[in-house]
Amino acid sequence: MKSFASDNYSGVHPAIMDAIIRANADHQISYGDDEITAEMNQIFRDNFGDVEVLYSFNGTGANIVSLKCAVLPFQSVICTETAHIHVDECGAPTQNIGSTLVPLKTPDGKLTPDIIEHQLSFIGNVHHVQPKVISVSQSTELGTVYSLEELTALADFAHKYDMFLHVDGARISNAVANLGCTLKEATVDCGVDIMSFGGTKNGMMMGEAILIFNKKLRKHAPYYHKQTGQLFSKNRFIAAQFKALFTNDLWKKMAAHSNKMAQLLKAEISKIEGVTITQEVQANAVFVIIPKHAVEPLRNTYRFYDWNVEIGELRWMCTFDTTEEDVKGFVEKLKDVINI
Amino acid sequence: MKSFASDNYSGVHPAIMDAIIRANADHQISYGDDEITAEMNQIFRDNFGDVEVLYSFNGTGANIVSLKCAVLPFQSVICTETAHIHVDECGAPTQNIGSTLVPLKTPDGKLTPDIIEHQLSFIGNVHHVQPKVISVSQSTELGTVYSLEELTALADFAHKYDMFLHVDGARISNAVANLGCTLKEATVDCGVDIMSFGGTKNGMMMGEAILIFNKKLRKHAPYYHKQTGQLFSKNRFIAAQFKALFTNDLWKKMAAHSNKMAQLLKAEISKIEGVTITQEVQANAVFVIIPKHAVEPLRNTYRFYDWNVEIGELRWMCTFDTTEEDVKGFVEKLKDVINI
Amino acid sequence: MKSFASDNYSGVHPAIMDAIIRANADHQISYGDDEITAEMNQIFRDNFGDVEVLYSFNGTGANIVSLKCAVLPFQSVICTETAHIHVDECGAPTQNIGSTLVPLKTPDGKLTPDIIEHQLSFIGNVHHVQPKVISVSQSTELGTVYSLEELTALADFAHKYDMFLHVDGARISNAVANLGCTLKEATVDCGVDIMSFGGTKNGMMMGEAILIFNKKLRKHAPYYHKQTGQLFSKNRFIAAQFKALFTNDLWKKMAAHSNKMAQLLKAEISKIEGVTITQEVQANAVFVIIPKHAVEPLRNTYRFYDWNVEIGELRWMCTFDTTEEDVKGFVEKLKDVINI
Amino acid sequence: MKSFASDNYSGVHPAIMDAIIRANADHQISYGDDEITAEMNQIFRDNFGDVEVLYSFNGTGANIVSLKCAVLPFQSVICTETAHIHVDECGAPTQNIGSTLVPLKTPDGKLTPDIIEHQLSFIGNVHHVQPKVISVSQSTELGTVYSLEELTALADFAHKYDMFLHVDGARISNAVANLGCTLKEATVDCGVDIMSFGGTKNGMMMGEAILIFNKKLRKHAPYYHKQTGQLFSKNRFIAAQFKALFTNDLWKKMAAHSNKMAQLLKAEISKIEGVTITQEVQANAVFVIIPKHAVEPLRNTYRFYDWNVEIGELRWMCTFDTTEEDVKGFVEKLKDVINI
Repeated sequence: MKSFASDNYSGVHPAIMDAIIRANADHQISYGDDEITAEMNQIFRDNFGDVEVLYSFNGTGANIVSLKCAVLPFQSVICTETAHIHVDECGAPTQNIGSTLVPLKTPDGKLTPDIIEHQLSFIGNVHHVQPKVISVSQSTELGTVYSLEELTALADFAHKYDMFLHVDGARISNAVANLGCTLKEATVDCGVDIMSFGGTKNGMMMGEAILIFNKKLRKHAPYYHKQTGQLFSKNRFIAAQFKALFTNDLWKKMAAHSNKMAQLLKAEISKIEGVTITQEVQANAVFVIIPKHAVEPLRNTYRFYDWNVEIGELRWMCTFDTTEEDVKGFVEKLKDVINI
Repeated sequence: MKSFASDNYSGVHPAIMDAIIRANADHQISYGDDEITAEMNQIFRDNFGDVEVLYSFNGTGANIVSLKCAVLPFQSVICTETAHIHVDECGAPTQNIGSTLVPLKTPDGKLTPDIIEHQLSFIGNVHHVQPKVISVSQSTELGTVYSLEELTALADFAHKYDMFLHVDGARISNAVANLGCTLKEATVDCGVDIMSFGGTKNGMMMGEAILIFNKKLRKHAPYYHKQTGQLFSKNRFIAAQFKALFTNDLWKKMAAHSNKMAQLLKAEISKIEGVTITQEVQANAVFVIIPKHAVEPLRNTYRFYDWNVEIGELRWMCTFDTTEEDVKGFVEKLKDVINI
Repeated sequence: MKSFASDNYSGVHPAIMDAIIRANADHQISYGDDEITAEMNQIFRDNFGDVEVLYSFNGTGANIVSLKCAVLPFQSVICTETAHIHVDECGAPTQNIGSTLVPLKTPDGKLTPDIIEHQLSFIGNVHHVQPKVISVSQSTELGTVYSLEELTALADFAHKYDMFLHVDGARISNAVANLGCTLKEATVDCGVDIMSFGGTKNGMMMGEAILIFNKKLRKHAPYYHKQTGQLFSKNRFIAAQFKALFTNDLWKKMAAHSNKMAQLLKAEISKIEGVTITQEVQANAVFVIIPKHAVEPLRNTYRFYDWNVEIGELRWMCTFDTTEEDVKGFVEKLKDVINI
Repeated sequence: MKSFASDNYSGVHPAIMDAIIRANADHQISYGDDEITAEMNQIFRDNFGDVEVLYSFNGTGANIVSLKCAVLPFQSVICTETAHIHVDECGAPTQNIGSTLVPLKTPDGKLTPDIIEHQLSFIGNVHHVQPKVISVSQSTELGTVYSLEELTALADFAHKYDMFLHVDGARISNAVANLGCTLKEATVDCGVDIMSFGGTKNGMMMGEAILIFNKKLRKHAPYYHKQTGQLFSKNRFIAAQFKALFTNDLWKKMAAHSNKMAQLLKAEISKIEGVTITQEVQANAVFVIIPKHAVEPLRNTYRFYDWNVEIGELRWMCTFDTTEEDVKGFVEKLKDVINI
């Protein structure tokens, strides 16, 4: 099966699988006190500067732990109404943290200080939850990417009002590949306080890293990490994957490839009458509306997900192992089912 | 001090204070197993039919307990974006229940099936919180009142999709006084599953009743009640107040009076140029925009709250002890400060 | 009905009822911003020195708020296995705080550093909850009283290991009456960080005060207070009761009286063969084992509670309105039912 | 490094690693809707009969999800004071479920109806948390194994009082290998309602299965699973490991081997003067007290953990890849350090 459904339909990149196999030698101290984890922690520091690193099994786990570090139950997390933490985690952050997510409407999946500003009137009033974290997804759930300026503006705004900036980086590699800068420039240099660095959606078997830049957020983090069930007894098997991901910039090559496939897909379908691209394509997702009669016939051959049923919007995702042939085959099929 | 700030600025109605004093005789079994509580429970059954009754100290407590009875952490509560449970309780429901509130935009503080409908697409998908409770305030935070038809339509919609209808009845007396029907007709007969019956904002010292009509919601209720810290050791002192409130329909007389004062206020200010009434006046609140220069001078004499700072909207509340003279004095002052 | 069941079977002291009636004049700003609350806050400062004061409806509410201020979900509260927070609040602290209570066995309801010491081995290990609060009840659930030295030793121990000392002071008046010192000497001078000052069990209608001595615990307290549902819109009616309680040391007179009645009860029953007093009588409770055949006949006339069913231990409580005649009548009845 | 520290110091069994590699072909539907997961679900049904299966990354995750399915916040989980859920998960169950764990003292890590019985007095009283789950570890944290009769007695007791029996089966394979029966006989046939089937400690990279036998516990399980962060997007990589574990009874062979190594270790050290074996050896753990002077010298060569610092008790664990030579080398070293 090939599909344009999700970047977690794909398997594991061969170089990463090799790293897993190599990690399986001998006994190692458990719960992240092994040598491979220590090496990977250093690699993260090499790339991001001073950072506390924890690992999680998946993105939901990383988001829960990150938000636990940053908010208390009477404080709120400001996010977009399309945010993964708000829509796609079955209420996990709310349940685990006991605090309120404030979902705000955006045209393109990106928060701005203007959109957030009216939340400030609640500050200092005990009747209202207190804004404490601005949480953004980079790249966003709509396949868009915050520019460095946009992210810096949010960080500055957050810090001005004693808030933290959290990045859900499930697809941070796709964003950085798009931005053409270093990981550090795209994150800590913009003022990000805490983030997840996604592996699962970019060719790893499983695993995300929680990167804590702001020293204020570090003290309790290991306890929240354990209490959330995200401390892995055999963590060497996540750390080894990340090592492979950071060898020869594999993370960037894979992300750049899936972004490129999304651009190719966009370019090809732009030529087809009746196809509307609904969001700017900046990462590895293409959002479209196609003629209604074509949707189910296309789905008979390729898996993909509806995004907005009411307006018939679809989401097509490219992955590290999407090929030009995959895209072309998909586009041909699309033309066929539209023209029937 | 007289004010138009809130119905909880007022004190206790004399008849209710008398009831408190009379209740203070002898020892009584604690935690609601006293005689006065038993009598009041019967009065609630006389008025509402088959109902399980619990008491709480305040509205936030009643709302937490009610929602605990009706939702699990992966289920959501659909409410308006102006709902007290969403905006004015410092995140108490979210924190206590661990479940998500879904705030929806309304023009007049009233939910409708149409506004809620798109939430249904989440049902049965583990990635999303599952809609389980529709929560409305009656009268609403905007001083409007659901008609019996509107409330019935919501209940039918809720039940069709295996949800419950919860009513935050902090001002249910004002709503029923407006509707001109019985308490039972305005609630259980419409299909309400669980509600609070507010006392504090209608002349009681403190106390709300949690009325559980739906038998499915009764089993765990006493435990949630205790665990929320709302089980009162000397509950006779709340029950006695309710008994006074239900003697000779005092609840209705008081609510009708405060509603009438709001109508008088509305009628008087409608004649003043530059004053815009922003919501229909159906209960005891009047929402207005007045000339900007008049706001602070008026506030120097009378206390009231801003509702929407961005558009300069104010809220003026009438209470059981607001007099015609109070209204007239206020209107005179308003004219003065506008005409300066 | 007179009973020896609980100090919350009793009603309201007349002087306190008078204060309630007097407080019912005019409108007052809600949510504790009224004049009476301000006056009472000052009285607390006069008695305890620098202190942040919040009010709650009941003891469970006060305990939840206090513990919320002092622990995070990965931190634990060390208490006795008879502690009210552990046994008698339907899991309220655990549920509201999401953190673990560690109940330790004691002979007399009193913790000591020795009893707690082995918990220290968990410190710094992410696999274990981290001890953060030592919570004691003063007087204890077993009617005993910590001496100033004992309390100071616990506070010193707590602070040495970066923990806080919390006092559940539902019956603090009884303890201080027993100790014969000032309120300040019995609490903040011993090193208490945060406590509740109980009113309900000592002649008030309802109400406890949360006294926050340690400045580190103050910052978030008002938000936790509101979020727990313990912020009273008409708080003047709690504050006024406390004012009466602190007028002419009414709190101490009432507590000394109920303690004295317990001593009288103890003295009288000590003379009866077959009666075993199981705990030292230092406050207003007497714990006894009486001949099995006498229990139910006695209960037919007087209400009281079983304490430990397995060994047939009973608890008899005296209150501010227990009279010498009450005690003597009770003792006579006891003799009768034993000698049948 | 070889060690006797923990069964999660070991790596992945080669046959399981092979299965992982083979699973890495093509795209697969995510979140457990893939073919390998479907196959493994069937294998679980073949072994256990009618069962709902969910997968988790680790044991803490499995325990949280299982307990969420079975208890509400006012209900309690009865466990031993050495239970992993109580001691070793940083309060995760308590925090995630918001409900109370009741840790009971046992001589050998095993609960019995007698030990639990006095908890029954709380049933139906709103002041107390309500016992709802009995949670046991099989094999226990002390290396002992419940007999089929003992487990059945607990299940019967649980069901008699409307409770559920939960098994933390992180080492269920070791227990069943010891019992010499089938998986079904050791679990569902005894009356177990819900359990985890451990993989991580028995040669898998990561992964546990949550097996829900009782139909009452199934309805909400997928939502709790997702909300806990334990739904794995690429679940085929856990399912494939379990498939290898169930091919030719690999789970049993590995567990039997580690049990056998523990027996060998026990036999050898029994001959050494000054060594006290403190618990019956029935699974893969040996609990000992050795001469104090020998502990640190031994630790210089082999890693292991202290169990009870106060009495100098140590825990030595054997794993699927512990060899006879490992045991013999360890015993030789032990003799050396004792005799120095």
